[in-house]
Amino acid sequence: MTVESVFTIKPIGFVRSELTSLEAAPRQGDEGAPEAWLELAAQAAQGLLSIAAGDELVVLTWLHRAQREVLQVHPRGDLEAPLKGVFATRSPDRPNPVGLHRVVVLQVVGHRLRVTSMEAIDGTSIVDIKPIL
Amino acid sequence: MTVESVFTIKPIGFVRSELTSLEAAPRQGDEGAPEAWLELAAQAAQGLLSIAAGDELVVLTWLHRAQREVLQVHPRGDLEAPLKGVFATRSPDRPNPVGLHRVVVLQVVGHRLRVTSMEAIDGTSIVDIKPIL
Repeated sequence: MTVESVFTIKPIGFVRSELTSLEAAPRQGDEGAPEAWLELAAQAAQGLLSIAAGDELVVLTWLHRAQREVLQVHPRGDLEAPLKGVFATRSPDRPNPVGLHRVVVLQVVGHRLRVTSMEAIDGTSIVDIKPIL
Repeated sequence: MTVESVFTIKPIGFVRSELTSLEAAPRQGDEGAPEAWLELAAQAAQGLLSIAAGDELVVLTWLHRAQREVLQVHPRGDLEAPLKGVFATRSPDRPNPVGLHRVVVLQVVGHRLRVTSMEAIDGTSIVDIKPIL
């Protein structure tokens, strides 16, 4: 296997949120992001079996507006701050822009989960959902 | 955007480990996995700037041997345990088999990081590296 191998992600669903622009989105979920709905595609919904209100989850998303060729950034856009490698930061700009979001489930309705604050804009693709161990 | 959208992951590097088979790999990093090296591709190495020994990181990997069509499992392969949706478990089998590994950096040598115990087999592709906030 060489670094030229590629893997394909098919979203399992989408984030539904009142956040509709990157400008309005806080940088981290604990900085005032609103609740969101995780809406699973019908073909992935069976994967939710046994998830219930109160569960703590990590949601993996695909940050489709990220710049994938960026390898170094000034953290939080502060030009006074020294450059850091993107792997030392939570910048959305990175070669494989997967977002990690820690949430608590508030409600389960069919193939949809209502979750606590989440800094992803409406329509963001969901890659995976995992329990916090 | 529909659920038919797909995204492409290009590995940023590979795990180098003495673990060479799934059978030998523990299910979680805290169950006796050995140290590993994260070997970044030359074209991604700039992204490591400012990472140092002692840093706590989340490493995202691609579990290429996973079964992607599986949506429900008996946790830890215990057939007596009730079925759970894969999103309620850490099973490697899931639609987008991204692994999350929490590690501490022990040493940085050029474009390679030596890290604490990691339950990934040798040659596993690295998708992303993020700091723990």
